[in-house]
Amino acid sequence: SIDGQRLWDTLMAMAEIGPTANGGSCRLALTPEDAAGRRQLLDWCEAIGCTWRVDRVGNLFIRRPGRRDDLAPVGTGSHLDTQPKGGRFDGILGVLAGLEVFRTLHDQGIVTDRPLELVVWTNEEGSRFAPAMVASGAYAGEFSVDYTLSRRDADGVTLGEALEISGYAGDLPVGEPRLDGFFELHIEQGPVLEAAGESIGVVTGVQGMRWFDVTFTGQPAHAGPTPMRLRHDALAAAARLIDRLQAHALADASGDTKVTCGCLDIEAASRNVIPGEVRLTVDLRHVVEAELDALQALFERELTAAGEAFGVGVSRERIWASPVVAFAPECIAAVEQATLAQDVPYRRMMSGAGHDAVYVSRVAPTAMIFIPCRDGISHNEAEYATPEHCALGAQVLCDAMLARADR
Amino acid sequence: SIDGQRLWDTLMAMAEIGPTANGGSCRLALTPEDAAGRRQLLDWCEAIGCTWRVDRVGNLFIRRPGRRDDLAPVGTGSHLDTQPKGGRFDGILGVLAGLEVFRTLHDQGIVTDRPLELVVWTNEEGSRFAPAMVASGAYAGEFSVDYTLSRRDADGVTLGEALEISGYAGDLPVGEPRLDGFFELHIEQGPVLEAAGESIGVVTGVQGMRWFDVTFTGQPAHAGPTPMRLRHDALAAAARLIDRLQAHALADASGDTKVTCGCLDIEAASRNVIPGEVRLTVDLRHVVEAELDALQALFERELTAAGEAFGVGVSRERIWASPVVAFAPECIAAVEQATLAQDVPYRRMMSGAGHDAVYVSRVAPTAMIFIPCRDGISHNEAEYATPEHCALGAQVLCDAMLARADR
Ligand SMILES: NC(=O)NCCC(=O)O
Ligand SMILES: NC(=O)NCCC(=O)O
Repeated sequence: SIDGQRLWDTLMAMAEIGPTANGGSCRLALTPEDAAGRRQLLDWCEAIGCTWRVDRVGNLFIRRPGRRDDLAPVGTGSHLDTQPKGGRFDGILGVLAGLEVFRTLHDQGIVTDRPLELVVWTNEEGSRFAPAMVASGAYAGEFSVDYTLSRRDADGVTLGEALEISGYAGDLPVGEPRLDGFFELHIEQGPVLEAAGESIGVVTGVQGMRWFDVTFTGQPAHAGPTPMRLRHDALAAAARLIDRLQAHALADASGDTKVTCGCLDIEAASRNVIPGEVRLTVDLRHVVEAELDALQALFERELTAAGEAFGVGVSRERIWASPVVAFAPECIAAVEQATLAQDVPYRRMMSGAGHDAVYVSRVAPTAMIFIPCRDGISHNEAEYATPEHCALGAQVLCDAMLARADR
Repeated sequence: SIDGQRLWDTLMAMAEIGPTANGGSCRLALTPEDAAGRRQLLDWCEAIGCTWRVDRVGNLFIRRPGRRDDLAPVGTGSHLDTQPKGGRFDGILGVLAGLEVFRTLHDQGIVTDRPLELVVWTNEEGSRFAPAMVASGAYAGEFSVDYTLSRRDADGVTLGEALEISGYAGDLPVGEPRLDGFFELHIEQGPVLEAAGESIGVVTGVQGMRWFDVTFTGQPAHAGPTPMRLRHDALAAAARLIDRLQAHALADASGDTKVTCGCLDIEAASRNVIPGEVRLTVDLRHVVEAELDALQALFERELTAAGEAFGVGVSRERIWASPVVAFAPECIAAVEQATLAQDVPYRRMMSGAGHDAVYVSRVAPTAMIFIPCRDGISHNEAEYATPEHCALGAQVLCDAMLARADR
């Protein structure tokens, strides 16, 4: 069985790379902090005899050989990049639990039939480069390598340039190595398991999500002498849209409709200038694809209405769409078996967040394991999961992987 | 009579200092561009024998001697600083029309009884350092010198530090020289004169204005798995406030209620993070002080309601309040007499924008002159006034000043 204390110590050591003021981490994708986190992981893995390769979009594949190295490996992993004020567990737990599995097998001299592969996917968060999960998407063929390398951050730096600077531009063809299966352990990032007193979520799929960049084009003018009725206030139109989307999502009693506006920027903002141009991001999610279509249609109607109400031009670009995902029954079953062996309360559930497993599931049988996180808080420095839950999740991961590697 | 072509050429020459892409100017207060604009003005003034002094908050006093230099001078002037994407007339016209008055008197060998003083007030716009009109306010005793010098820009640089860097930190005590009267020519910055086909506004006063910094404190969390009903979305609360304030101001049929939110910043914004903290600026204006009180009370109620609706903490700081101003009857009369002599359509009107004349009026009899600007647009690169209107305004200014200086 895995060593929970060692896993916890490893998590806390990784959190020291790019620490933030309030106990979180900041390792935006392919920054020096992200590169330092990867280097630390590789040191740990080399110490137990693993070898590694990097593909052209920076995905890191760390191998533990099996008895039958001609067979496709069983994969696990997640991401090491974080939000600007991110936590210590989102993504990191999935990577370091994979390391803990490797360390446990190493200590006990266990060799699996199939090789095992620990994967660190590049730029999962989508915070520095949109879209999220872009490099696991490239691996699965959703995005071309050129598209992936040409994503730009807010300063105009491309993902390809950032890869070169970071030292993680590899030459392994994207899509290699093929995996026999993939298991990803992650914190839930929501409040469901904690509220129900459950210790494990057996994740059966992921809700669909769509990202939009919206631009409102009004007319900058002086805040003092410009009559209200003659204004073309881009921020007033943006505020109207946000308020209407909130009202719509809050009115869905099922709770399945989710709308978030995370970024809002005013061009040449000044407190006595009526905003002339506003850029807004919109994130729409739903567990049912047809409902997501309806949500997008509503968003587009409200956008048009907000522009008309304030005499403001509107445009929107859909920059990402990730359909509703159902994971592979045999991998879900492997996770559920491993969970039953632990004799803890658990549930089968959908994931609200996108994960690299979303794209990997297109090319390899995949499932995920969730553990609770405190108050359901994530993408926040206060993110927390208990050492016990981390250890439990790693044990379920270990057992599910072994079952698949030796089947 | 003044030389309209020379005034126009001078305006266009000043616009070349800190030019913007679309024909405007960017000379934020006390930047190298602002300093270069001041230096250009001083070169022009020195060429016609004027002397100048700078006070401790950077106000520039340029003197044309009179026959009776023991008497207090008659002042004119405005500001040379601009918005980030400002126009070529806002403030600049008032300064360069003063220069044109001096040049005209110089050419014609006219000496007035009282000396004349052309004043360039520091940081009128309030864009780099809030509040607006801070240095004319210091001159009039509204703000202490310490308060004024300690204002900070968005990068944390104080006005005092920026003064030192710019080379315009003078040693004249703030409040000197006392003025016998003050006349400020300005573009209207609104659409009223143009719509009515009138050429001059005889400005009888200025509407009251209040500035607030508002903070919404929610809880950052993941956009995907966090249920709508458990969110504490700071941007949703800000949007609700903005939408309610817009609705309230638009519902005032008199058009006297004005509300503007010019800046909105999300802390650690990311498109898949529910905004945890938002800072918003609110600018409230009204021509009646009691109505402005009522507007502030409404704003505070709506702020509380928006916070409660989204489970978000709110706080607000009133960083500036400029009461409704009535100008001096004898100065208004001087402007009206000078306007009547031109035989053009005009109106008596209140100003919607704050001007340095607001504070100067507390320590010297003051009035203002408006000319129309195209489409009422200001605080915008497209700001425009015709050469004819600029010349007309400068002539009215000249005649009003002469009447007072030789009374
Ligand atoms: N797990 C996670 O934070 N993924 C980022 C993509 C998303 O926004 O769901
Ligand atoms: N005239 C002008 O732009 N003044 C700035 C102060 C205000 O916002 O009214």
